[in-house]
Amino acid sequence: MPDTDMPVQPLVERAPVAPPGFYRVRLDVEYDGTDFVGWQTQASRHGRTVQHTLEAAVERVTGSGVRIVGAGRTDAGVHATGQVAHFDTQWPHPLEVLQRALNAVLPPDVGVVGLTETQPAFHARYDALEREYVYTVLNRPLRAPLRARIAWHVPGSLDVEAMQAACAVFLGRYDFRAFGRPMRERGSTVRTVTAVTALTHADEVMITVRADAFLRHMVRRMTFALVEVGRGRLSPSDVASIVASADPSQLRGIAPPQGLCLVRVIY
Amino acid sequence: MPDTDMPVQPLVERAPVAPPGFYRVRLDVEYDGTDFVGWQTQASRHGRTVQHTLEAAVERVTGSGVRIVGAGRTDAGVHATGQVAHFDTQWPHPLEVLQRALNAVLPPDVGVVGLTETQPAFHARYDALEREYVYTVLNRPLRAPLRARIAWHVPGSLDVEAMQAACAVFLGRYDFRAFGRPMRERGSTVRTVTAVTALTHADEVMITVRADAFLRHMVRRMTFALVEVGRGRLSPSDVASIVASADPSQLRGIAPPQGLCLVRVIY
Repeated sequence: MPDTDMPVQPLVERAPVAPPGFYRVRLDVEYDGTDFVGWQTQASRHGRTVQHTLEAAVERVTGSGVRIVGAGRTDAGVHATGQVAHFDTQWPHPLEVLQRALNAVLPPDVGVVGLTETQPAFHARYDALEREYVYTVLNRPLRAPLRARIAWHVPGSLDVEAMQAACAVFLGRYDFRAFGRPMRERGSTVRTVTAVTALTHADEVMITVRADAFLRHMVRRMTFALVEVGRGRLSPSDVASIVASADPSQLRGIAPPQGLCLVRVIY
Repeated sequence: MPDTDMPVQPLVERAPVAPPGFYRVRLDVEYDGTDFVGWQTQASRHGRTVQHTLEAAVERVTGSGVRIVGAGRTDAGVHATGQVAHFDTQWPHPLEVLQRALNAVLPPDVGVVGLTETQPAFHARYDALEREYVYTVLNRPLRAPLRARIAWHVPGSLDVEAMQAACAVFLGRYDFRAFGRPMRERGSTVRTVTAVTALTHADEVMITVRADAFLRHMVRRMTFALVEVGRGRLSPSDVASIVASADPSQLRGIAPPQGLCLVRVIY
């Protein structure tokens, strides 16, 4: 159950264009990941997925089976305000009508916020240049039940300036094997991280991470490392050493899924 | 299942002081009301209540049975960031220890944010001078799954200035029978509303209401009336007429519970 994305695919694996008589649509989706086992439907696991929930809604409204491809394969409990997906359809009416119909049949924890025709070769996953995630850390002594589903409660004080210094350590093109696993066995673990920030808003620390793609668990492991820095248990240079080690055993821990949200996919 | 509070009680009904050997504590509580049938345990209904959840936690930690009295009897699905309650205990250790222990055994949707010794005659409900609720209206065309549990989605455009004008209509001491029922049969329906505001924050309209006490469903019915004003279906003077009518049939509708939150009790 990856919290994120995929290695760059060789051209030969790119999805085909929309078949004759069909056109391709881009779907912008928000969801509360709490009650899902993740974005992607997989033979190897059971439970409610966002992908299947959307496919069932499209099938119910259009009357035709459909396969939906998402940009970020978010993990169980991980949310999205900016997930992007695509599918092919023969829907003969305006897409606003389809969007309204989908929102009418979807459960309250998933919503279609955009539905637009794209080029027939658009691929939500392979064409994505970057993904952006935000991780919310609730940093106050007492927990906040109304934010239990969307934040990781870290009660002790955090040195946010040290966390900000550590953010810079991740910037660039590195082997991030210490922070996550590739989606496919023996896939590349090299990723390019283009932005990492830690900002305080009231009693929350928001960690924003942008990269070309992410390894499984990568944002949550990066967040865990940053929080360890905030707690004074790691220094920014310790984090740099962990990156350089390319050894997952150098960092023991992961931030829980509910603080994570896929906010944007950049094409 | 009241969303709110109670009529002023005659002095003879005031709860007794803490019994000998016990001292009284004030409990400040936050909860996500989604999965509760309301604050108060009642013989006439089944389901999980906040009151019982807290009583079970106190009993588990202290080993003694306890009765907890809350200031605002919130309805099913209604949240609180500022609920206040009291109970009597013989707990011999520092209250910080009890608070930590309670938070350790409570489920994630309830949290004790304050626990302090009070005067032995303090009564969370009868001593409250005012209650303050905030109702969150999500006002954008598309729903937001991550806020489905904490806001009422009103997709059409709202005239917030007209809503603000209508807020003033509620200020003062009136018979609010048109907006709610008393907690007890034949109880008074006169209440004093001391503040009503409607403020826009990004895509939300936050309606804040403060009064000495509330009738059952009163804030949600007031919110419904204000949204009808925002939609252009009622004018501020229509709302004044409804207040003056003291006739519940003059307003057909109620805002759903999930947008409502008890934010403060003033003593």
